[in-house]
Amino acid sequence: MNKTKEKVNAAIVIIGNEILSGRTQDVNVVTISKWLNELGVNLEEVRVIPDIENSIIKTVNELKKKFNYVFTTGGIGPTHDDITSKSIAKAFNLTYGYHKVAYSILEKYYGKNKFSLGRKKMAKMPIKASLILNPSSGAPGFAVENVYCLPGVPSILKSMLGGLNNKIKGGKKISTKTISVQTVESEIAKSLEEVQHKFKEVEIGSYPFFRLGKIGVSMVIRSTDKKKIDDCYKEIVGFLKKKKLSMIGKK
Amino acid sequence: MNKTKEKVNAAIVIIGNEILSGRTQDVNVVTISKWLNELGVNLEEVRVIPDIENSIIKTVNELKKKFNYVFTTGGIGPTHDDITSKSIAKAFNLTYGYHKVAYSILEKYYGKNKFSLGRKKMAKMPIKASLILNPSSGAPGFAVENVYCLPGVPSILKSMLGGLNNKIKGGKKISTKTISVQTVESEIAKSLEEVQHKFKEVEIGSYPFFRLGKIGVSMVIRSTDKKKIDDCYKEIVGFLKKKKLSMIGKK
Repeated sequence: MNKTKEKVNAAIVIIGNEILSGRTQDVNVVTISKWLNELGVNLEEVRVIPDIENSIIKTVNELKKKFNYVFTTGGIGPTHDDITSKSIAKAFNLTYGYHKVAYSILEKYYGKNKFSLGRKKMAKMPIKASLILNPSSGAPGFAVENVYCLPGVPSILKSMLGGLNNKIKGGKKISTKTISVQTVESEIAKSLEEVQHKFKEVEIGSYPFFRLGKIGVSMVIRSTDKKKIDDCYKEIVGFLKKKKLSMIGKK
Repeated sequence: MNKTKEKVNAAIVIIGNEILSGRTQDVNVVTISKWLNELGVNLEEVRVIPDIENSIIKTVNELKKKFNYVFTTGGIGPTHDDITSKSIAKAFNLTYGYHKVAYSILEKYYGKNKFSLGRKKMAKMPIKASLILNPSSGAPGFAVENVYCLPGVPSILKSMLGGLNNKIKGGKKISTKTISVQTVESEIAKSLEEVQHKFKEVEIGSYPFFRLGKIGVSMVIRSTDKKKIDDCYKEIVGFLKKKKLSMIGKK
């Protein structure tokens, strides 16, 4: 019986001093999160940690037990500061070395003559890992049990996610409905809280925004149950009408 | 004796379902990290967690012991999903209620007649917290011991950091120097690793980039010791010359 699980969750571990130092703006969380939503997987935690072996081992070992899936980004390139693959091997107590298939993929990609030691390093990983193919730049990512190791470069990471669609088994897909109103949060806080109390299994978020010189609030309803989202939506629209607040956008 | 500490570190806790769902792109990490760099504080971990009381309490209690400073963002507004203040009170076992000074600031900001229940909620926090003043929209943040609670809206958060400059006691400031070269990482990997071995107290990161149709690598040297950065820089320039690779930018 392959019953769809009610809830499947995931965590992301961003491995990168460049994110912590403020040098680089992470954009991979949004990419992975949106992709996971489509697969019915709920992203429940993100950690950004430095390129330090102990931090990687500790964090991955903690999160792989707590979540159905863990995705790491960064640290699988050819330079000395790329220590993710070795650290993951240590975390799982696996042999680290040349992965035969990865080696031959990279040798083919670069050509025998240009397959330098630096490039060969990208074939080093837990030797029994499953590969995550890379359609944009050759060097594959890899997975061990429920931990998936992806590169940090956003365009390359993005190109590799599609290949994982069949490997990630999601639960019920989370749907979402947004109502935006030209008002301030305090104006709708009480009514919105009452709706939240009535619909306990639906998650309602309230987010103020400032755009094009207008202030407003977006209310985001999320649930795996579309019927409940619709009912909740109606309640919110109901109190907005009573308050004579008009919606400025919905999707 | 107020000797400057060698190393002062910090963590950020982003509290927000909207970041985890991929709806909102976080930009506060870059803002806070750059500000901390200027103060001589090293950001060493970031966690993004959902708006769940237990997650907030557990995460804050863990990180406040591990780091000199902890900054939280999000969840201090007027709606039902804003539960940071209450959770922080619980984490520290402090009374949660109207903070007298916050109450009077907000009453003055909105005017007595427009000081609704929703707005009053923003004055609720650990009643003995220190306030973090808000020059853009009235509602203050607050600090308890080494935990600083800031709003999630980026422009408001940014406007509040200046007021904390005197409260954060940093260590030696981390300096940085970047060398960008039109090459691929594998070309410089070995030489760069040798430089890193020679300069163990300097952190060298290597980051590939693709911009304006060009591929390249940025090498970032970071340390609290400017002299060591300069020496390390010279070594890198030295091997680049030998390899006849020309720099395309430095800062």
